[in-house]
Amino acid sequence: MTTRTVTLLDVARAAGLSKSTVSDALQGSGRVAEATRERVREIADGLGYRPNSAARRLRRASTGAIGLHLPHTATRLDYYMNLAFGAVERAQEEGLDVVLLGTPTAAHGPLATRVDGLLVIDPEAGDTAVPGLLDAGVPVVTGERYPGPVLCGAVVCDNAASLTALLDHVRGNGARRPGLLAPEGDSAWAQALRSTATSWAAKHRIPVVVRSVPFVATPGEAAEATRLLLAEDPAIDAVICGPDGAAPGVLGAAIAAGRAVGRDFLVASCVDGVATRTSHPPITAIDLRPADYGRACAALLCDILAERTPADAIRHHDWALETRASTLPG
Amino acid sequence: MTTRTVTLLDVARAAGLSKSTVSDALQGSGRVAEATRERVREIADGLGYRPNSAARRLRRASTGAIGLHLPHTATRLDYYMNLAFGAVERAQEEGLDVVLLGTPTAAHGPLATRVDGLLVIDPEAGDTAVPGLLDAGVPVVTGERYPGPVLCGAVVCDNAASLTALLDHVRGNGARRPGLLAPEGDSAWAQALRSTATSWAAKHRIPVVVRSVPFVATPGEAAEATRLLLAEDPAIDAVICGPDGAAPGVLGAAIAAGRAVGRDFLVASCVDGVATRTSHPPITAIDLRPADYGRACAALLCDILAERTPADAIRHHDWALETRASTLPG
Repeated sequence: MTTRTVTLLDVARAAGLSKSTVSDALQGSGRVAEATRERVREIADGLGYRPNSAARRLRRASTGAIGLHLPHTATRLDYYMNLAFGAVERAQEEGLDVVLLGTPTAAHGPLATRVDGLLVIDPEAGDTAVPGLLDAGVPVVTGERYPGPVLCGAVVCDNAASLTALLDHVRGNGARRPGLLAPEGDSAWAQALRSTATSWAAKHRIPVVVRSVPFVATPGEAAEATRLLLAEDPAIDAVICGPDGAAPGVLGAAIAAGRAVGRDFLVASCVDGVATRTSHPPITAIDLRPADYGRACAALLCDILAERTPADAIRHHDWALETRASTLPG
Repeated sequence: MTTRTVTLLDVARAAGLSKSTVSDALQGSGRVAEATRERVREIADGLGYRPNSAARRLRRASTGAIGLHLPHTATRLDYYMNLAFGAVERAQEEGLDVVLLGTPTAAHGPLATRVDGLLVIDPEAGDTAVPGLLDAGVPVVTGERYPGPVLCGAVVCDNAASLTALLDHVRGNGARRPGLLAPEGDSAWAQALRSTATSWAAKHRIPVVVRSVPFVATPGEAAEATRLLLAEDPAIDAVICGPDGAAPGVLGAAIAAGRAVGRDFLVASCVDGVATRTSHPPITAIDLRPADYGRACAALLCDILAERTPADAIRHHDWALETRASTLPG
């Protein structure tokens, strides 16, 4: 007995729709009304249509790899390396290699012939490589959302919840006048930090004094901002530093101002890393669990490639609060 | 007019040798006596033999990628990320992708069908993945030498010269009794640090007090080693820390012992990174220039793949001394 494979065309004929509409509907591309999408899925299920597994196998055989784009400008390289290793580990479980993408060059052929899909981590509005990646003709998953209209999957972190946890933590350890060094700019992250500080202050009737520092602030810039903050407002008894890697500057400025860090002055960071773990004292920080984040991004892309989930699915990634001596009164 | 391409077989016939011997001779594989190698090269040049460019193009077309293996256990992730970006940049100039390799799994096909060549960075004797990589059937370049007999290219750093520069620097800034926290184990790097300390001490008639710390020491372990060292030998007026990322621990212990770091007590690190740049004060260190190191490794592999250089070529990579406040008496 021969079983004929049900094709996309069979589903399209049964539904009275074009092949591309049926494809969009089954891939959850968002261009198709939800009612149509449901009807197409029912017809496909009724016919026993297996979503495109032959084409998927073919596509995998042709490249067997996914691409990984990381921001080059950032200072958080140990974060991105951990993330990359996580993505490699997860992709390997599906037999896929991870190609580390550099800046686009003419030397290369089109991306779609080289990879089955793309991971684009922390896509910044200013990164000129990103639009081309999002338009390369293969499924894309971004780590954090891309600030523009685009059809892709995303794995996102709840930055409002993690800053709330830090503010609750310093309050629980005695802080009554916390300051926040917030990154400049209108990135989703910077906006989340500022609006969270405002809403937390209103809820607890505790003012949060916000000062701006560069998006990629150096420890020196954080130190100078802290020095000015303490000179203007000596009642400040805690400083939370937004930008990654800059919190040791807060520590240095507080010590230089004669504050007893961890006892009458608390220091914390919105991003954990080498700098916060190796400082003296070590600094309380939000661990964004980069290896697991990389795994989650790769897992979503694999699910999209295997058509186990819609191409525009959004998933959430958990963080953890790492409390250390900089906020723990002995 | 048609020009017939001179093949490896033509060279073998003219030389009266087997094709594999001629291939070994032209690739500089080391299995062929130097005299034979020279004779084969002369014959090949005389016939106008172009080393295997057709086969090379074919091989490139089949994968278009090189693999990159990094140690996962190490803490120096920002170092390796910089190195990886450098390698990607250089490989791109030849139209090659860089595949980030994870742990070997059964899910994957043989490496030789997926990549044209391999970069194996800091191959450690204990890394179980390394022997398989070195035997994958494609050209290999290691970053630092592999501690075992193997035919591959390597890019190496002069660790004796960089420690000598650090010792000369602290001596030039007043240190008369330096200590060295040397990594345990018999890696090429650990051995170079210990033997250099001994020879420098003999040359300058200045004792260098060497203490062992773990190969991947934490700042806490470096702090404890420093505390013990200062308790045993209060005349110590400088400490150079071997393991990457641990030097802030030396700094913390020195400050806790009441030493004025940068003035009457100098601190330096054999490896630069986030931890040394962001500490207070920032710590003098050897910058191993990881991005350029990655470029150099990829460049050597590209040269070997293009048969522009022998498969066992060794190249040297330069470091730079970054002097900072921890060793500069104001």
